[in-house]
Amino acid sequence: MYVGADVISALQFTRSDVEKLIALAEEIRRVYETGGRLDVAKGKVLFTAFFEPSTRTRLSFQFAMIKLGGAVVDLGPEEVTSMAKGESPEDTLRTVDSYNPDIIVVRHREPGFAAKAAEICRAPVINAGDGYNEHPTQALLDVYTMWRIFKRLDGLVAGLMGDLKYGRTISSLSYTLSNFRDIKLYFISPRELRPREEVLKILDQRRVHYELVERPEEVVEKLDVLYVTRLQKERMSPEEYERLKGSYTVTYDYLARFKKIPVVLHPLPRVWELSRDVDVLPQAQYFEQAKNGLYVRMALIKTILGV
Amino acid sequence: MYVGADVISALQFTRSDVEKLIALAEEIRRVYETGGRLDVAKGKVLFTAFFEPSTRTRLSFQFAMIKLGGAVVDLGPEEVTSMAKGESPEDTLRTVDSYNPDIIVVRHREPGFAAKAAEICRAPVINAGDGYNEHPTQALLDVYTMWRIFKRLDGLVAGLMGDLKYGRTISSLSYTLSNFRDIKLYFISPRELRPREEVLKILDQRRVHYELVERPEEVVEKLDVLYVTRLQKERMSPEEYERLKGSYTVTYDYLARFKKIPVVLHPLPRVWELSRDVDVLPQAQYFEQAKNGLYVRMALIKTILGV
Amino acid sequence: MYVGADVISALQFTRSDVEKLIALAEEIRRVYETGGRLDVAKGKVLFTAFFEPSTRTRLSFQFAMIKLGGAVVDLGPEEVTSMAKGESPEDTLRTVDSYNPDIIVVRHREPGFAAKAAEICRAPVINAGDGYNEHPTQALLDVYTMWRIFKRLDGLVAGLMGDLKYGRTISSLSYTLSNFRDIKLYFISPRELRPREEVLKILDQRRVHYELVERPEEVVEKLDVLYVTRLQKERMSPEEYERLKGSYTVTYDYLARFKKIPVVLHPLPRVWELSRDVDVLPQAQYFEQAKNGLYVRMALIKTILGV
Repeated sequence: MYVGADVISALQFTRSDVEKLIALAEEIRRVYETGGRLDVAKGKVLFTAFFEPSTRTRLSFQFAMIKLGGAVVDLGPEEVTSMAKGESPEDTLRTVDSYNPDIIVVRHREPGFAAKAAEICRAPVINAGDGYNEHPTQALLDVYTMWRIFKRLDGLVAGLMGDLKYGRTISSLSYTLSNFRDIKLYFISPRELRPREEVLKILDQRRVHYELVERPEEVVEKLDVLYVTRLQKERMSPEEYERLKGSYTVTYDYLARFKKIPVVLHPLPRVWELSRDVDVLPQAQYFEQAKNGLYVRMALIKTILGV
Repeated sequence: MYVGADVISALQFTRSDVEKLIALAEEIRRVYETGGRLDVAKGKVLFTAFFEPSTRTRLSFQFAMIKLGGAVVDLGPEEVTSMAKGESPEDTLRTVDSYNPDIIVVRHREPGFAAKAAEICRAPVINAGDGYNEHPTQALLDVYTMWRIFKRLDGLVAGLMGDLKYGRTISSLSYTLSNFRDIKLYFISPRELRPREEVLKILDQRRVHYELVERPEEVVEKLDVLYVTRLQKERMSPEEYERLKGSYTVTYDYLARFKKIPVVLHPLPRVWELSRDVDVLPQAQYFEQAKNGLYVRMALIKTILGV
Repeated sequence: MYVGADVISALQFTRSDVEKLIALAEEIRRVYETGGRLDVAKGKVLFTAFFEPSTRTRLSFQFAMIKLGGAVVDLGPEEVTSMAKGESPEDTLRTVDSYNPDIIVVRHREPGFAAKAAEICRAPVINAGDGYNEHPTQALLDVYTMWRIFKRLDGLVAGLMGDLKYGRTISSLSYTLSNFRDIKLYFISPRELRPREEVLKILDQRRVHYELVERPEEVVEKLDVLYVTRLQKERMSPEEYERLKGSYTVTYDYLARFKKIPVVLHPLPRVWELSRDVDVLPQAQYFEQAKNGLYVRMALIKTILGV
């Protein structure tokens, strides 16, 4: 990661990038948790353009920028913009870019949209999710969370569960972990929702060890981390959805039957696939994970701004 | 009110709390009206989460924080958040709380929601309205307005009119006034919209003198303050609504027939129950009342931040 | 333009106003493009109230204020405000005005709304579009753009094309140009969409030379500037709309047939009337035009704040 960099794909991240961002996130965290402040972004503006709903990503970027002393301008919901009059998102971004924001954070339902935005915009563009494709800053906070818990990333065994085909956090997380040694990934999903071929091909090229399994109970006890994601209703027939729900729901009772319970992560929002009774377990680290998003995004903003 | 306090119910306010906040609001007002500034909230972030529409409460909190030198992050309308994907408001708040806002202001249609939010969140939570239950900061600006006009709160005679059953400003205002001596309240409403039993019971315990009346003309001339609120259409049958409209509408002509016209307050927004021709009367103090919301919320923020 | 001025109509602008704002915009641009900053608006608040969608106007005002060191509060979309409960926009503005914003920027579908807002509000009001009536700050950036390209405004020949009847940029731009010598305007539109009588009458009084023409090819080669606007579907029958589309569409091929291609401007958003293949032409200056909005609005804010 360098000053002015676009962050489009987790494939950009090297091992060194990840390690530096984690170290910087830890340093920033230390400052803020002891009541300090870094006012390094004073006079800078971060622009957030979310063409799809978001809570964590949008708000943690806004908090991150403001806590660094910078300012935020938000595009607002589509109906208050000229897209309500038929403007293309490309024209919208090109215009806003001309107002000289220092960073543009963009989410859009179209895979490849962030790359297109980066071509259009002079400002550095951060991909906050482009359809089913990628969500690289989510991967950063995911591995930051693992690092905080295990004090290492090498050698981790992670089960990624749910809709692996259309879940953009899955590809980005796998790519980011592929920089580390002896990673073992279990992709836990119904056959129809296995990771896309293009993703598996990249993991093959990067010599990542992975297995495709269909039921979580086959592997839970081998895992350091169980990374749960939503099954997306709109991807399946209603019958299939109902049939699958049971097998991909993580509850307290479900976890309690195992001898070893892995750390449970989830990019959130959760719906039924991760029940609230899990929250009491010490292994439930998904709110801590969300919190880590703040610090890793502060680290990323600071790095890109070069301040 | 102390540093870091949650503000959930007007029952928390003591006489001394109210007096201190009024004194502080006056002091802040003096500074700002003479062109001064207090930059006491620099580096602090106020988070506003309005799960129901709001103009005055949301914007006056935002103006208050910004004028104190702090920053604001807003959740945005529900459709841009992950609640559009089915996330619970509890998960949403728990996440945002982990980004370390210094204060969270929350409105939600569910009575008791603010109390729940305060349990979930580390940050101080201010209740900006929880369904029909309470709206304590509205009560603060209401009594601040009365104090500015009458230079006292002891001995005031107030008529509270409209939908007293579901109006959250009614309970909070009554509770706040109950700290003062010789208060007399007239609850003016159709029988079906009288204050809820739980509210009257608390007023009984606090030995507040009140009367339930059905028609404003019975008491207008006895009042120092007539506090008008909306009749909420959705609470009644259409026939009943139409039948009641006439009796609970305050117009210039209606007021002009009385020998003594009380100060007219309204939490706003108004619809038909308070006609615009009243605005010209010197007794029409509802826009001044709205303005007072800015200063009393600045005072509250300053107190809670401990700055 | 003076400190504290309302900006309601382009008819307010004198030649000297326009020249001073252009000079100030150039000066501010120089500072920011060389990495400098003016923190002149510190402690000031700009309030944006857009009762109709907007991208450029809303965001460029927000960027302008923030880049000058000030803060922004936004009303938000209608459904999050008390207008969802039936409040009038007049009550909304009167309330917000009592929170002492330093400038209010307002857009509303009703012609004359900004003038009404200026009567209600103590704060200076800037008209960001009032229905089909006017959009004076758009006119400022339009003439600033022309000035940057031609280094003069006197003697310009401009073709204004599209829906001239209901396009609010047309009236404001014509009025602003009327301050300069030897301006020639061609109004290019179907007969039904010619400028309103009231607009032409004002131009007559101001002795502006103009012609009404129906097809762009009659005049393109005479123009310094072709100012394209949207044909608004909702103003016509579907048959008429389809019939007219062809004659008022500017494409690369359409322009390429002329010996001389004028500078092409557009207030944006564009839909089909200006095709994306035009973007490659050096005459395509509409994104530069949008960018100029930032600097001219910074100049206007600075002037009105008197800082």
